Amino acid sequence: MSKYWSEITKSVEPYVCGEQPKDKKYVKLNTNESPYGPSPKVLDAIKNAANEDLRLYPDPNCDELSETIAKYYNLDKKQVFIGNGSDEVLAFAFLTFFNQDETIVFPDISYSFYPVYGNLYNIDYRLAKLKDDFSIPVDEFLTENGGVIIPNPNAPTGKQLELDSIKSILDNNPNKVVIIDEAYIDFGGTSAVGLIREYPNLLVVQTLSKSRSLAGIRVGFALGQEELIDGLNRIKNSFNSYTIDRVAAVAAVEAIKDEEYFKECTSRIIKTRGKVTEELGDLGFNVIPSKANFIFAGHPKYPAGELFVKLREKGILVRYFNKDRINNYLRISIGSEEEMEFFIEKVKEIIS
Amino acid sequence: MSKYWSEITKSVEPYVCGEQPKDKKYVKLNTNESPYGPSPKVLDAIKNAANEDLRLYPDPNCDELSETIAKYYNLDKKQVFIGNGSDEVLAFAFLTFFNQDETIVFPDISYSFYPVYGNLYNIDYRLAKLKDDFSIPVDEFLTENGGVIIPNPNAPTGKQLELDSIKSILDNNPNKVVIIDEAYIDFGGTSAVGLIREYPNLLVVQTLSKSRSLAGIRVGFALGQEELIDGLNRIKNSFNSYTIDRVAAVAAVEAIKDEEYFKECTSRIIKTRGKVTEELGDLGFNVIPSKANFIFAGHPKYPAGELFVKLREKGILVRYFNKDRINNYLRISIGSEEEMEFFIEKVKEIIS
Repeated sequence: MSKYWSEITKSVEPYVCGEQPKDKKYVKLNTNESPYGPSPKVLDAIKNAANEDLRLYPDPNCDELSETIAKYYNLDKKQVFIGNGSDEVLAFAFLTFFNQDETIVFPDISYSFYPVYGNLYNIDYRLAKLKDDFSIPVDEFLTENGGVIIPNPNAPTGKQLELDSIKSILDNNPNKVVIIDEAYIDFGGTSAVGLIREYPNLLVVQTLSKSRSLAGIRVGFALGQEELIDGLNRIKNSFNSYTIDRVAAVAAVEAIKDEEYFKECTSRIIKTRGKVTEELGDLGFNVIPSKANFIFAGHPKYPAGELFVKLREKGILVRYFNKDRINNYLRISIGSEEEMEFFIEKVKEIIS
Repeated sequence: MSKYWSEITKSVEPYVCGEQPKDKKYVKLNTNESPYGPSPKVLDAIKNAANEDLRLYPDPNCDELSETIAKYYNLDKKQVFIGNGSDEVLAFAFLTFFNQDETIVFPDISYSFYPVYGNLYNIDYRLAKLKDDFSIPVDEFLTENGGVIIPNPNAPTGKQLELDSIKSILDNNPNKVVIIDEAYIDFGGTSAVGLIREYPNLLVVQTLSKSRSLAGIRVGFALGQEELIDGLNRIKNSFNSYTIDRVAAVAAVEAIKDEEYFKECTSRIIKTRGKVTEELGDLGFNVIPSKANFIFAGHPKYPAGELFVKLREKGILVRYFNKDRINNYLRISIGSEEEMEFFIEKVKEIIS
């Protein structure tokens, strides 16, 4: 601890992201990236943007991108907020909607960045314990709270929460914001975007990092009624006016527009997920039914921590959380057809 | 005000950036962008980065860029922090080093984002009143405080603070961080980077938006001893792990490496600045001697507010701050040779 650090700097517990090793080439199934590159139209747009206009600041409001996203979701441009990855959107949302003296609620097994934001802003939080089958305990979100955040599908379990449950949470928190973090919604889940008209307290957060194959570009967004988006803009414009660069903005526009490519990629991932789920089941794994681009699986006989290490030795990275209740599970991102065949082959070698 | 906003959201006073109008083509001398495009090597690097690797997350530590900047300044990689524009670096620095219950100090006429950060984080600040000649009142920074931030050269005045004065401020604040914001240092100023070895409390912040012609790409950085950089990383990793996208990272590396192009552009701007300063002086303007890529000038007979409006009508945007003591000045970014000839021509039309 340095004497130059503020009290907040001393007290935070920074997020640790999935490893990005440089020592050798791995089959990377650890950070839920897409196995497929971005749309060719995205790459063309980036090349076209490599021109002398880069000397100029970008549009601080990302008008074109907001309009494109609004049109895609049948919303108004004023119902869209753009951020530098959905992590930044979430970081802004915690500060915009949650107060230090009110306790917010999120699942105990969930995206591990939520408690980090809570600590950063000194916002109290209560962990709602997932049921034994890893489903969201809806009742826990119906008591008094300072706001709610739930990933849907949840990570790292991949389990979906039904819209009816989301509605009852929204109904029971009319004065507090309910954030539905839909980072993984495009792999078969049902989005809450359709509820925005009805619920002024609903904020839906999405990202281009997974289903749009653009983790390397950093664009995420929030959708909600105008007063929520206005609030996010107040905080963002008190932090950094220009969060999205000119290249990222045009790349994101093309990624949203190329619906056909998007559907092709997500369909392939869903198909591969089905195949891997079945194959792991045949090998005796307990696989949680997933609506995301990853699966959460554990084997009754082979400890997940050991499998993690052995897979790594064989050139495959997956994610292992050494945490109560989930320490016998691995989170395995769905790679390409070939990568997953290789993965199953190596799993067989290890457990045979 | 929405009932969904946090107390902080209600109380912030967001920064308002220079206008980026879309209604017509202006000669844009209002946001201190470079009149010259980025290095051709930067554009090539961006085109090469438009490939399928964009499906993967970027390096969260920006190792290659940190190494490139470290090498350029003869520092260690661990003495470099990268952010999404220097505004983000400053936003992180306020939170990392300044405490809510201690009063920080910055000049009253200065970058107008500083009070916005203060309000965002509820950090008290005291404004040190610039002297009548707009120079920094060094004594005001030698009393007890919770930290200091000074732009050098200052904006919007363009005035430089000598290194000896910076040293005495550093010496007098051994337990508090002194941030020197060098957004405009590459246009003839003397950087404080050389003092980093000697002063563990010095943080120097720079940007690629001005002298490297990359306002559209959003990369800024901080330089300081390792414990300060560690602190910044703690806060950044509690906010957003991946702030710099893959394209921005390679663009920034090439921009730093292309020293020849950088020198050519900055020399031309310095030369044009000299010419414009002289011409405005001949027209009766009071021009503050500038070490930045803008000049701050006012005319005793023609109110700056009116000049601003008339220049706009004639297709030229400059920046006008309707604020005590500087409301008879315009901040004029240095454009290309042709743009500045056009500017002088229009000024002559207005005041003749």
